[in-house]
Amino acid sequence: MSSTYEPGDPAVSRGSLDRAFRPRSVAILGASDDPSRISGRALHYLLRAGFTGEIFPVNHKRDIVQGTPAYRSLADVPGVPDIVLIALPAARLADAVRECVAKGVAAAVVYAAGFAETGDSGARRQTELAAIAREGGLRLFGPNCLGLMNSALGFVGTFSSAFDAGTPKGGGVAIASQSGAYGGHLAYLCRERGLDVGYWVSTGNESDVDVATCIDWLARQDDVTVIMAYLEGVGDGDRLRAALATARAHRTPVVITKVGKSAAGAAAAASHTASLAGADDVYDAVFAESGAYRARTTQEQIDIAYACAHGSFPKGRRLGIVTVSGGFGVELCDAAEQYGLEVAGLPEAARARLRELNPMGSDDNPCDTTANWLNDPALITRTFEIMYGGGDYDCVIGSFTILPDSPTFGAGIREAIRAGTERYLDRPTALCMQARPEVVRAYEDAGFLVFGDSDRAVRALAALARIVEGFDEHSDEAPDPGLPTAGPLSGLSEAGAQEVLAAAGVPFLPSRLVTSRADAHEAAGELGMPLAAKVVSVDLAHKTDVGGVELGVTDAAAAFELITTRVAAARPDARIDGVLLSPMAPAGVEIIVGTNTDPVFGPVIVIGFGGVTAELHRDVVLRVGAVTVEAAREMVLGLRSAPLLTGHRGGPVADLEALARVVSAVSRFAVANRDRVVSVELNPVLVGPDGAVALDALILTPSKEGHPWTSD
Amino acid sequence: MSSTYEPGDPAVSRGSLDRAFRPRSVAILGASDDPSRISGRALHYLLRAGFTGEIFPVNHKRDIVQGTPAYRSLADVPGVPDIVLIALPAARLADAVRECVAKGVAAAVVYAAGFAETGDSGARRQTELAAIAREGGLRLFGPNCLGLMNSALGFVGTFSSAFDAGTPKGGGVAIASQSGAYGGHLAYLCRERGLDVGYWVSTGNESDVDVATCIDWLARQDDVTVIMAYLEGVGDGDRLRAALATARAHRTPVVITKVGKSAAGAAAAASHTASLAGADDVYDAVFAESGAYRARTTQEQIDIAYACAHGSFPKGRRLGIVTVSGGFGVELCDAAEQYGLEVAGLPEAARARLRELNPMGSDDNPCDTTANWLNDPALITRTFEIMYGGGDYDCVIGSFTILPDSPTFGAGIREAIRAGTERYLDRPTALCMQARPEVVRAYEDAGFLVFGDSDRAVRALAALARIVEGFDEHSDEAPDPGLPTAGPLSGLSEAGAQEVLAAAGVPFLPSRLVTSRADAHEAAGELGMPLAAKVVSVDLAHKTDVGGVELGVTDAAAAFELITTRVAAARPDARIDGVLLSPMAPAGVEIIVGTNTDPVFGPVIVIGFGGVTAELHRDVVLRVGAVTVEAAREMVLGLRSAPLLTGHRGGPVADLEALARVVSAVSRFAVANRDRVVSVELNPVLVGPDGAVALDALILTPSKEGHPWTSD
Repeated sequence: MSSTYEPGDPAVSRGSLDRAFRPRSVAILGASDDPSRISGRALHYLLRAGFTGEIFPVNHKRDIVQGTPAYRSLADVPGVPDIVLIALPAARLADAVRECVAKGVAAAVVYAAGFAETGDSGARRQTELAAIAREGGLRLFGPNCLGLMNSALGFVGTFSSAFDAGTPKGGGVAIASQSGAYGGHLAYLCRERGLDVGYWVSTGNESDVDVATCIDWLARQDDVTVIMAYLEGVGDGDRLRAALATARAHRTPVVITKVGKSAAGAAAAASHTASLAGADDVYDAVFAESGAYRARTTQEQIDIAYACAHGSFPKGRRLGIVTVSGGFGVELCDAAEQYGLEVAGLPEAARARLRELNPMGSDDNPCDTTANWLNDPALITRTFEIMYGGGDYDCVIGSFTILPDSPTFGAGIREAIRAGTERYLDRPTALCMQARPEVVRAYEDAGFLVFGDSDRAVRALAALARIVEGFDEHSDEAPDPGLPTAGPLSGLSEAGAQEVLAAAGVPFLPSRLVTSRADAHEAAGELGMPLAAKVVSVDLAHKTDVGGVELGVTDAAAAFELITTRVAAARPDARIDGVLLSPMAPAGVEIIVGTNTDPVFGPVIVIGFGGVTAELHRDVVLRVGAVTVEAAREMVLGLRSAPLLTGHRGGPVADLEALARVVSAVSRFAVANRDRVVSVELNPVLVGPDGAVALDALILTPSKEGHPWTSD
Repeated sequence: MSSTYEPGDPAVSRGSLDRAFRPRSVAILGASDDPSRISGRALHYLLRAGFTGEIFPVNHKRDIVQGTPAYRSLADVPGVPDIVLIALPAARLADAVRECVAKGVAAAVVYAAGFAETGDSGARRQTELAAIAREGGLRLFGPNCLGLMNSALGFVGTFSSAFDAGTPKGGGVAIASQSGAYGGHLAYLCRERGLDVGYWVSTGNESDVDVATCIDWLARQDDVTVIMAYLEGVGDGDRLRAALATARAHRTPVVITKVGKSAAGAAAAASHTASLAGADDVYDAVFAESGAYRARTTQEQIDIAYACAHGSFPKGRRLGIVTVSGGFGVELCDAAEQYGLEVAGLPEAARARLRELNPMGSDDNPCDTTANWLNDPALITRTFEIMYGGGDYDCVIGSFTILPDSPTFGAGIREAIRAGTERYLDRPTALCMQARPEVVRAYEDAGFLVFGDSDRAVRALAALARIVEGFDEHSDEAPDPGLPTAGPLSGLSEAGAQEVLAAAGVPFLPSRLVTSRADAHEAAGELGMPLAAKVVSVDLAHKTDVGGVELGVTDAAAAFELITTRVAAARPDARIDGVLLSPMAPAGVEIIVGTNTDPVFGPVIVIGFGGVTAELHRDVVLRVGAVTVEAAREMVLGLRSAPLLTGHRGGPVADLEALARVVSAVSRFAVANRDRVVSVELNPVLVGPDGAVALDALILTPSKEGHPWTSD
């Protein structure tokens, strides 16, 4: 019997998922004799695919279902099935799940809809179902899902019509999708593209098993070469981040589509998946930090998965290009620039060899062969040898347009390229070509990636390069955020917020709150001149408007007098705590450093350039969670305007390390106090050659009423 | 007999192109009996396609070529052929072209390579060839081209292997490509996509007829519904702009691929096409002003042409979405946001009808039908009726994933959508679906656009919307640039440049050049205080470095003394003309206004935000040629930072009209003096609530040595 466990306990979780994804036996509750019905389809698929384990249809009326001996109840089934597919209506589900628990099965799949996706009462019924399973140690797929498949075992535990035309006999591609329809769509596209899907799972309402759980499991399997995931919303952000970290550690590429980028899209996602959609930029940051590849379109997702499944990855970003017409080379160069591949020139020795080989062709990269070799395919072989051997490119694209489709030349071209790349099969060679599907397959079987479009070919190779970089990058351990702040965090004045953040490691200008002329005079002696002076009052939001601010002060006592007199005249009702004196800010670049709280992923550290144009240019970088000083430094350098900090146009070089320390400190503070802080804002932090200093501080805390994040 | 004419003379030009594209008779010089040879292929294609006119093979050795009576020379051919295809080697071309002239034919096609694309001597031979043709009134296609085709007449005057598999029997798609290989590639892709190509032309080295000439002719033909063009470089920018204006006037969509965006790409284009590639941003501006659609990838070019060929265009940007699964609706919303279509909600009456119709589905846009209607296709009919009738969307996308491929449901779904859209055939309905090619064709025949990918469907509809907007926009007539400036423009001091540009309508601050203390004192009385003072010297590039600038001057005589003393000490060699006094600049936003001279399109007016971050954000708008004040105003509003001029975050509202007048004036000045001015720069123009004023002026003129534009 399984023991009670907490979802997310990795040891138990993986054990049960092993049995779910690699069952030795399957029971189907409500199995129908009609293979076209939802309740009959999984049995039909299992039989047709020749499932390697035992199959136990359960039907309270029939002894034989689709030719297979059936049982009246799950209790009657001999032994303990690893997984139970529940093809029963909603009303009978609670009892069915209890029966699974009583029998000691590892996992159950609930196909039925009508739960959280329909509203509050459905959500309650879903919670009840999940509770029964959790307390009984049963892993639950669904409800409102289409089940799962392990094609190498012939285990097709789904009724998705995507497998109507047949199931693959194993394969390195795994698909994990919240939406069964999208998952089926991907499976169809994979078949069209010649990609064999080994694992397929649709998680539906994710009352227990979610896509993150599946990614974590799939990434550990030796027979998975690439995972395609589809997300509409995420319930447990930490679990997703951990799963992607697992995939990265196992060097398993994850190619994700996450919809809901647009506002309208986000609204539709919320109504559809009964899960919250976090802000889209945060998803970008999460995927980027974990090395997962986010595809912007379904076509891109398939293209990148196709390239990953091929199995050879470039070691760098240097791209060689061979064409039969110069224009295609130009098009490929344009795409290379867009996607960040480098079309470096050939060394002179290699150029000389090309000149000798093909005097009419070009002698550099991109290499336009001008199709002179049609009469002598050995020329194309040697051209590829020179590109790889002489140019040492990390990957090569050959653009052959419609020639491979020619009955006369097609096979010869294929063999010629194959001969020229034979010693470089560890590097991806992609061909841009238009041909009939059977010709494309023959080229693929010869070891090439085939794309119909230059842009798509370059993007796919660039994606492979990025994925490898993600694997190889030093994976930054999240720093210890430290202890929560001891004192209260809500209701702080600005001075109070400064004090708290100064204790957390944020440098502010020294300041003195003075309450008299004499006090001001004495403070000025300590702080030095010139000074900035501003009134301190909880009643005054806009201090400048009431004459509450003086800059460049050289007579502190006079400034104290002037400010208090003016404010008293303008706002006699305002309570005045005194005047805050501080040195004038040094020259520097204005950076905004802040945190937000994402409903899915928690604290997010955000940096951006300050000033009036900040929101027009949206020059912002964010990361989830606490960041090290090193990671913070990378964030800063990731800003489009970073050159302003590094000596742009002869300007001063700012103290990046000091800024990075501020960013790291603020992120750790936000994480250490994640339940008590909604947002921190330092606007601006001034960064100059000799350090960084925050001029302002704001801490927002959860409001007592309503959702804690709405005050953000 | 044709008379001598200037290329570009529209009347003559169009007359000859009529005969070239719609010949009643064709002669082929060097026609081979072997249909697989380049010199035999055009004849083979003509015979196979059943050319409607007369065919005259010319072969000095044979009486019969491919079964057709042949002639020993062109002179022997009876009558005057409209067009002559010259399949002869380079050495015999000059004579052949002379024979065409002597015979009085309208046009000749030169296939042979080895001209301008190979270097200087080839370029000279090409110039000679073109001169013989021009003087003889003969239009020339090529050299180094693949010829042309008019498929409705069976006129296949090309040896492109793209037509090996057959030629269409007419069709609304026209292809005009500099590269024959790319043009053939497009033709292949069109056939795959079910698009019938009516006209096809490859212009090669463009010694006479260029792609622009072809666009101009094709746009005027009633049987052309969309033109696909491919450009590597452009020789005559004015002709291209005029051709695109013709297409716009005839409401003929032009979908262009222009390669050479990247630096590496531009270098490759120069070596390949023997024509100059202008800066890529200028091409964007040219295409945008003319309403031509620039595709970024070949796939996009085919997609947009496919959508145009369908013939129904949306009247606006409102998109309705019908799906069988919510996730696809979200994906489509994301794409709509990206490409600028609006997913507006349904009116309440329509929502009520949807609720009644399908209680399980969603009752708004995007409308997720949840595939409940599979048992009752009339539901899908009524859903589409509600989207069009109740939502009044300009276009609708239906996302049906793999269902149309189902033998059971496919035809029923098609008929159901057809019934629901029958009254709205003037609006484009696009379907996202995956199916076998024959199923896709059946859906297309029913009146739908079919795409395999959500993103591509939305982008295509957005492109249609933009193309219609381009047709309907008020076409801004270029303003009269006025007379060239009377005096010299080179060697001007800054004061001289200011004077010239002030006369052209650019406001500057008043200023006085003073040469003594007394002079300075008197000028200050006229100009008012405070003043800016700067030394005037042709020897001093960096005036600030030598103490040559004082700001906020309240004692002009003292400032004169100070500046002249400091400069004399720092640079005793510098010739000093005096000190320029002007009022301090008013507060305002800094805008850079300038012109460049594009080698292809001539003067280009450029505006951008000034300041240190200008080049980091690249917030720049440009237009070719002289612009009206109204067009200049649109340019300003096109800047990403335009809100800084229109009251962003409570800031002041700047005088846009004043800025627009400056922009227009500078553009007209640059065009009026286009042969004498390389670049004008006002950096900055200060724009405040009460006007705009230029603080600085620079005029660059062509250097006497080398290429006139290299000094830019």
